[in-house]
Amino acid sequence: MQADGYPENPVLVRVQRAGLVESVHRGAWCLVDSSGDLLAGEGRFEDPFFVRSSIKSIQALPLFETGAVERFAFTPEEVALAIASHSGEACHTEQVQRTLERLELSIDDLRCGAHQPNDPDVRFTLRAEGVQPTALHNNCSGKHAGFLALAKHLEVPLERYLDPESEGQRLARAALADLTGAAEETLLPGIDGCSAPTYRVPLRGLATAFARIATPDGLEPGRAEYFRRMTAAARANPVLIAGSHRRIDTDILRATEGRLFAKIGAEAIYAIGVCGGDRGLALKVDDGGLRGLHAFVMGLVDRLGLLVSDDEREALARWNDPVLRNHAGLEVGRVEPVLP
Amino acid sequence: MQADGYPENPVLVRVQRAGLVESVHRGAWCLVDSSGDLLAGEGRFEDPFFVRSSIKSIQALPLFETGAVERFAFTPEEVALAIASHSGEACHTEQVQRTLERLELSIDDLRCGAHQPNDPDVRFTLRAEGVQPTALHNNCSGKHAGFLALAKHLEVPLERYLDPESEGQRLARAALADLTGAAEETLLPGIDGCSAPTYRVPLRGLATAFARIATPDGLEPGRAEYFRRMTAAARANPVLIAGSHRRIDTDILRATEGRLFAKIGAEAIYAIGVCGGDRGLALKVDDGGLRGLHAFVMGLVDRLGLLVSDDEREALARWNDPVLRNHAGLEVGRVEPVLP
Repeated sequence: MQADGYPENPVLVRVQRAGLVESVHRGAWCLVDSSGDLLAGEGRFEDPFFVRSSIKSIQALPLFETGAVERFAFTPEEVALAIASHSGEACHTEQVQRTLERLELSIDDLRCGAHQPNDPDVRFTLRAEGVQPTALHNNCSGKHAGFLALAKHLEVPLERYLDPESEGQRLARAALADLTGAAEETLLPGIDGCSAPTYRVPLRGLATAFARIATPDGLEPGRAEYFRRMTAAARANPVLIAGSHRRIDTDILRATEGRLFAKIGAEAIYAIGVCGGDRGLALKVDDGGLRGLHAFVMGLVDRLGLLVSDDEREALARWNDPVLRNHAGLEVGRVEPVLP
Repeated sequence: MQADGYPENPVLVRVQRAGLVESVHRGAWCLVDSSGDLLAGEGRFEDPFFVRSSIKSIQALPLFETGAVERFAFTPEEVALAIASHSGEACHTEQVQRTLERLELSIDDLRCGAHQPNDPDVRFTLRAEGVQPTALHNNCSGKHAGFLALAKHLEVPLERYLDPESEGQRLARAALADLTGAAEETLLPGIDGCSAPTYRVPLRGLATAFARIATPDGLEPGRAEYFRRMTAAARANPVLIAGSHRRIDTDILRATEGRLFAKIGAEAIYAIGVCGGDRGLALKVDDGGLRGLHAFVMGLVDRLGLLVSDDEREALARWNDPVLRNHAGLEVGRVEPVLP
């Protein structure tokens, strides 16, 4: 730690112009197995970071473990949306709307707030029609439908479903502690963009959790089965997990046919579990920006051997193109990951 | 310098959630007077960075010094656009179009390329009308109209007006060396976003140049007069310098009635000259992002005493609001500059 309380992390991405470094993105990352043993890493990966949306699959675990997912007959599509950060396309918003109706709830029960959808075509259409986005367009609306189902099942008053001390949120926090190995008393709630509680976990713990989610053989059998259902739902519905326009999670799921279970979180936190491969990767870009995240993740995944064929590399090549072109189409520089 | 060739700069902005640091933006800055004497600074401000669009006023100097600005009767509005990074609004594109017509040139002579305009309303309207942006919408189109006038005046073939070794660009590079104190042989051209040559200059030299531009008393009388005309054109036309929607340069010019001559460049390089105050400020955010730049600039300007009234502070308060709210409107954190 430096004096101002923030770790000095290494440069993960260099943005070059004319062969000279113009900007950099720093950060930390690590690769572990499901016992948490470190296989590779750089920077302050033992330091805690807010896990944000990266751990939606863990936040969905109580939905399964309490039986709510069976009682309310969640489909694989609804499971995918419960663990998604979606782009607000019709396939996302209409499904969440139907889920709420089946739960005898309405959009007014969602406490996630509204924001402009990530999908540029949907943003344009809303504006062209003079329509404001609703809570259904919030990238977390599927997670909130899941939280509401859980609250209903547990008889938690619906207006308290985001309270960190409500039963559903306590179960989610306990699951986060279990999966990451963090002591539960170290998990102090911050407020996420969607008003759900979010917690800080060391990157190494986040990577360990993703190794376990993707290769759950060592977990208690029920939990293992639930994570298999979640990763299967993601594999079968990659567009529901993120979106159809330039979303790295969707593209990784598609290119690897779900073998890499990848999930982004706000402020450039990222986690990948290798399904059946006993590996988990977590990383955080210090500045929280997508340019560094996108450029580094794909180079790192390839370097660590997590892509297994040229077909996969080709399908993901758009995320791994270092050439920086200007508005006239001239090559002016490169955005290059600094790989181990 | 660390081993990977990039300076380790201090944290300029902390993004906090629940009182804990979630992300940071690093960088360097310095404040000097017009003799280049250091008054304050942090980080590697002696290291060179690409100056990008921050130095458009210096790139416009040959337009004045060769007499082209008189020959072609540039108005203050045209001078403002020649030193602008504009948002592609009608007031910008129509003026550049008129300038090109008067020069007996056309949009086809512009070599800056086209990009979606910075202004969100213009972007929306273009898309709604099914119209592609043109080179007029390029934020640098006014600068290119100036370059073309210069090339025409110097009888440089128009297709060579961006060639670093063409006479106009050589004059611009010599002016950059003069104003910043950089040895001309250290100025090796990179290609800017608009295909013009761009050079690396130590932040301290950039700050010195801005002190001189804004308080040109020590310069050769002609040059002093030209910079006074440029800063007066910016003062009189703050919207032409950037735009009407959330542009920090326009807002600083307006709030200070032109006393602070501020200019942004790509990858978060920034420079401010204090008109009549013999001070120049330059800064670069390592990650090249606007969040860090916006949060730090305004706090720093106030801390350094460059804002002189509560009216100015109030007019710029929107740029200096540390509260981070989520989509439901809850306060979830702060974006705080780390001030000297």
